[in-house]
Amino acid sequence: MNFASDNWSGVAFQINDSLVSNANGSAAAYGDSELDEKVKAKFCEIFEKDVAVFFVGTGSIANSLSMAAWSKPGGISLCHREAHMIEDECGAPELYSGGGRLVGVDGNFGKMDLEDLKAKLSRFDPNFVHYGQATAISITQATEAGTVYSLEEIQTISKIAKANSLPMHMDGSRFANALVNLDVSPAQMTWKSGIDILSFGGTKNGCWCAEAIVMFDPSMADQMAYAHKRAGQLYSKSRFIAAQYDAYFKDDLWLDLAGHANNMADRLREGISISPNARLGWPTQSNEVFCILPRNKAKLLQDKGAKFYQWHVPVAMKDKPQTDEELYRFVTSFATRVEEIDQVVGELD
Amino acid sequence: MNFASDNWSGVAFQINDSLVSNANGSAAAYGDSELDEKVKAKFCEIFEKDVAVFFVGTGSIANSLSMAAWSKPGGISLCHREAHMIEDECGAPELYSGGGRLVGVDGNFGKMDLEDLKAKLSRFDPNFVHYGQATAISITQATEAGTVYSLEEIQTISKIAKANSLPMHMDGSRFANALVNLDVSPAQMTWKSGIDILSFGGTKNGCWCAEAIVMFDPSMADQMAYAHKRAGQLYSKSRFIAAQYDAYFKDDLWLDLAGHANNMADRLREGISISPNARLGWPTQSNEVFCILPRNKAKLLQDKGAKFYQWHVPVAMKDKPQTDEELYRFVTSFATRVEEIDQVVGELD
Amino acid sequence: MNFASDNWSGVAFQINDSLVSNANGSAAAYGDSELDEKVKAKFCEIFEKDVAVFFVGTGSIANSLSMAAWSKPGGISLCHREAHMIEDECGAPELYSGGGRLVGVDGNFGKMDLEDLKAKLSRFDPNFVHYGQATAISITQATEAGTVYSLEEIQTISKIAKANSLPMHMDGSRFANALVNLDVSPAQMTWKSGIDILSFGGTKNGCWCAEAIVMFDPSMADQMAYAHKRAGQLYSKSRFIAAQYDAYFKDDLWLDLAGHANNMADRLREGISISPNARLGWPTQSNEVFCILPRNKAKLLQDKGAKFYQWHVPVAMKDKPQTDEELYRFVTSFATRVEEIDQVVGELD
Amino acid sequence: MNFASDNWSGVAFQINDSLVSNANGSAAAYGDSELDEKVKAKFCEIFEKDVAVFFVGTGSIANSLSMAAWSKPGGISLCHREAHMIEDECGAPELYSGGGRLVGVDGNFGKMDLEDLKAKLSRFDPNFVHYGQATAISITQATEAGTVYSLEEIQTISKIAKANSLPMHMDGSRFANALVNLDVSPAQMTWKSGIDILSFGGTKNGCWCAEAIVMFDPSMADQMAYAHKRAGQLYSKSRFIAAQYDAYFKDDLWLDLAGHANNMADRLREGISISPNARLGWPTQSNEVFCILPRNKAKLLQDKGAKFYQWHVPVAMKDKPQTDEELYRFVTSFATRVEEIDQVVGELD
Repeated sequence: MNFASDNWSGVAFQINDSLVSNANGSAAAYGDSELDEKVKAKFCEIFEKDVAVFFVGTGSIANSLSMAAWSKPGGISLCHREAHMIEDECGAPELYSGGGRLVGVDGNFGKMDLEDLKAKLSRFDPNFVHYGQATAISITQATEAGTVYSLEEIQTISKIAKANSLPMHMDGSRFANALVNLDVSPAQMTWKSGIDILSFGGTKNGCWCAEAIVMFDPSMADQMAYAHKRAGQLYSKSRFIAAQYDAYFKDDLWLDLAGHANNMADRLREGISISPNARLGWPTQSNEVFCILPRNKAKLLQDKGAKFYQWHVPVAMKDKPQTDEELYRFVTSFATRVEEIDQVVGELD
Repeated sequence: MNFASDNWSGVAFQINDSLVSNANGSAAAYGDSELDEKVKAKFCEIFEKDVAVFFVGTGSIANSLSMAAWSKPGGISLCHREAHMIEDECGAPELYSGGGRLVGVDGNFGKMDLEDLKAKLSRFDPNFVHYGQATAISITQATEAGTVYSLEEIQTISKIAKANSLPMHMDGSRFANALVNLDVSPAQMTWKSGIDILSFGGTKNGCWCAEAIVMFDPSMADQMAYAHKRAGQLYSKSRFIAAQYDAYFKDDLWLDLAGHANNMADRLREGISISPNARLGWPTQSNEVFCILPRNKAKLLQDKGAKFYQWHVPVAMKDKPQTDEELYRFVTSFATRVEEIDQVVGELD
Repeated sequence: MNFASDNWSGVAFQINDSLVSNANGSAAAYGDSELDEKVKAKFCEIFEKDVAVFFVGTGSIANSLSMAAWSKPGGISLCHREAHMIEDECGAPELYSGGGRLVGVDGNFGKMDLEDLKAKLSRFDPNFVHYGQATAISITQATEAGTVYSLEEIQTISKIAKANSLPMHMDGSRFANALVNLDVSPAQMTWKSGIDILSFGGTKNGCWCAEAIVMFDPSMADQMAYAHKRAGQLYSKSRFIAAQYDAYFKDDLWLDLAGHANNMADRLREGISISPNARLGWPTQSNEVFCILPRNKAKLLQDKGAKFYQWHVPVAMKDKPQTDEELYRFVTSFATRVEEIDQVVGELD
Repeated sequence: MNFASDNWSGVAFQINDSLVSNANGSAAAYGDSELDEKVKAKFCEIFEKDVAVFFVGTGSIANSLSMAAWSKPGGISLCHREAHMIEDECGAPELYSGGGRLVGVDGNFGKMDLEDLKAKLSRFDPNFVHYGQATAISITQATEAGTVYSLEEIQTISKIAKANSLPMHMDGSRFANALVNLDVSPAQMTWKSGIDILSFGGTKNGCWCAEAIVMFDPSMADQMAYAHKRAGQLYSKSRFIAAQYDAYFKDDLWLDLAGHANNMADRLREGISISPNARLGWPTQSNEVFCILPRNKAKLLQDKGAKFYQWHVPVAMKDKPQTDEELYRFVTSFATRVEEIDQVVGELD
């Protein structure tokens, strides 16, 4: 009963099959193989646009190189105050941007509060260098709270970004889960809504190690090629990532895997919503379910073998845990089984 | 007929088998799985010592984080002037060390000339900060010229390093090939000869993507853990590397793969040494054969389907290509077949 | 009527006299002159300890190199959320520390709230690298709010620092003003209260350009010497700073200059405290007076020629400006004249 | 008898007078004073162009921020292999450019060999990211060997730069000395000959501490303003540099000071050229005289009180010191007296 994280799950067999079938024979190294080219063309097809794609090993690298692409002296990027890049990447964005700063924007449900975003942007004044300059805005889709920005919400933030001449990044560590939730196209959720660079995650959704930077303005690709190589991300056997994505995209496997994870989360959400011993922390819109449980109930579940983490309670949360309660996170994945959900829900009663 | 590079080769089937067999079931992420622990213990066994091991995605990262571990303000690391880190990593060591500098040491056969090394070290004077301070010495084993430092040669350089209070790094991108050539133990070729940190390569020798930083002084591991995470190298599904190494080490697969590659190189060396149309650039001691060919002979081979690169002629090379000749590099791998060698040799006559 | 900042003021004539008298004759460059040595010895005398002193050009550099001296991968330094280094240095600490992060601690009166400091420190867990590691605590004395930490307050924070194995930095941009206010010795306010590195300011207190890094643990000086040079701070004519400090310390000039500035601030404070049209924002303990004025009263003063700035209202401020009011900062200096104070106070009625 | 360096000399009395006369009265801080504006306008007049000027504290900072202005991932700047930035700045350019690399170009007389420059540029190939990308070319005027590039020589290098789409930097630590030697205008020696950014030195030529970055393309000034502030170079009492330059430029003081230094060097050159015990290392074209002396002759001079340094013999030097000889550097300055020259020359016989 793994609900600790989707990255505790293993790998979809189709992904391994693809690795096996690409293991024999030699191919050009450093991203120049036919398979690399084929998969990059597939990205263009999926996004309905000529995009530049760079395979990387982790989401932290994807986020960091994305933010670094816009780095400037005294540069400050704005993201949600619970964003992965500010909370969980050990200063990677700062390292890769040569000392750029991240500033957290407040907001409930893991989403940026527009007023706070505007207030924070208003502090930057080109005639006053002391405070630094804004360089980019980053949003996470799905968010760290398991919620999903609507297209309209993304577009509203993009409009603010554009009004401030700022580019927009999307951390799509759980991109497929959000996409399935919104039931829109990849193009709609990204560049058609104002996103300039996307961290496109595959690892959490059934790959071993497959992350990509997708740039919707390919003219930036020249410099990214050097930045990517300098970061040690130009894999000699780059096709080990290409092979994973090849299977990932085939017959919409990625959407099926994410759809299953979302369904499992929804089943858990439903169980929680009717339980007298639990309540939801936020709406469930992807494959993460946050709920408030009595501490002893959580311990019971863990004793029964369920793996999940207690979660830090954000300042902006409205209905906070009471005495004897805590906030917990349950993450589902492509590999979650119905019985696992039902067992947890059963224990909640 | 791939002789372009060992990283053009595919992957040993045992490696894929291990990935497949580890794909099901959940396991702790971020390097905390049982498999991660098991493989790290195996490293300790292989090196006959308590070592700290960090899995990374590329040799560039392994080298860069190693050098960065010793970074100091105005720090300068010394490596051979044809070393991968100075020639082929696009400034990665400089990035990760916050602006450290690499200084190339001259020397034939891809090996450091001791007099030049000493001369370059003599420039550093703790009472004269202007020039900077030496921070480390790095050697490559096997070297970029396909040669191998003897244990005595390594120890001589280590002695110079110690006399200057400098730590020693070994870039072991082709560690197994060198080890098989010397027929010594991993411990002898590293810490027993004065090496402090090793970049341990697996990718070129039959893995998809398996590189590791091996620290012989585990007390440095605390800070490396943060540096490793900050570099975006703490893979959520870290066991995708662990699984590769698990198979790699099982029944000495790694030594068998390297032994085969070396044997193929030796067979090619022998063919070249008796050919009237070719001569060796340097001794062949691992899986790289450098030879001088008439340009039209090389073209003929390429027309027949052989993949290999012309190589930059180092200043220190003694017997240089004459008119109509060039220096070429042929790399063999675990996947090279006898027939491929024989076909090339046959064409040389 | 300059109350805009103490760095709008000119220079005490004794400082210029010293420059003039050191202008002739040659002397060793790069900090090796007799005058450099003499002044550094004077620092040891003043601090009653063998200290390492590095002259730098600005307080930002002093702060940044101080924090960088403790930099670690994923390192985070804690300072008050209104500290100069986090608000006004355009990312200098991040640059010099290779990407270190600053985290702001809340607190009224420009001073750290101890509970918030402890809460923020509690997030760092050596077994959880994702969030990063704490590297240092920095306090500002006198604070950005014009207040002064008591010895006991400094010692309490130092104790927390030591309990977390963290070093302590003091931003002493207005060190002399705080010292005069507390009427203690430089040693008491620094190393005897747990401070490890001090940014010692002279510019705001009557010098042209004289800042220094004072290290109470001289064993750290070896590496700082390289860091200082690498930052471009090893001035060839280093004695232009030494000459300023030579005059600054002679006959306790520095304390006299600061004493005058503090007295002028106190006179202004008194005037404000009895005015019906103004009230104090915080206690006045150095040479900065923060007060809340009706907007039209402030405009009147400015029309009469008074230079001063409206100030950002901190979240933690208790008695905030009401409608038609704003918070304003008045800074006095060695050059402020009694008549200027009286004129401002006169206009307040 | 100071011939150790021009930065061992003191300060022209006119510079101190200007500091004294600007000491009273308050003025806007951080470069916004009238004096700052006046001096910056003077720069535009001198260079016959709208230029952006940033005052900095040292030549190392001027060079480093100049190179950093063009930094790119994997970026490599080319300078002469004996250039100050590669030999004497302790890694400052690497720090400020976030890890950029410097590559030294060979050449006699402290000047770049054009063939070596072209050969080194030819290694950069936009389709091969591994080696990195060229970002700029920097020349030093006057050079470290005391020689001066002719306008034609500068233009030839600029043409190569432009052909490679590279910007050009001039390290003008001894700009005035070179200018007087060539007897051309500042505009001719810089932007009219293809220079994009200039490090404009004043310290070695009679100031205390006055260096400036001069940008001939003011559209780059926006980002430099942040870089300059972030480097801790936005001096609160910026006018202490402005005041020095104000006097420096008045009635062409700067040219007179440099002219005197050059004349003294020429007088020394003449004495050496007719001495049987000495010979010139290179032509004397500014205020540095390099000569080869018997070691005992040098010792005799030093015993008589002459301060000067033995110099590292460059590889490219043609007429090298023989047994019992060494290369020595004598630097003259605005403060060198005729009698000092004559005393040295007298001792040479």
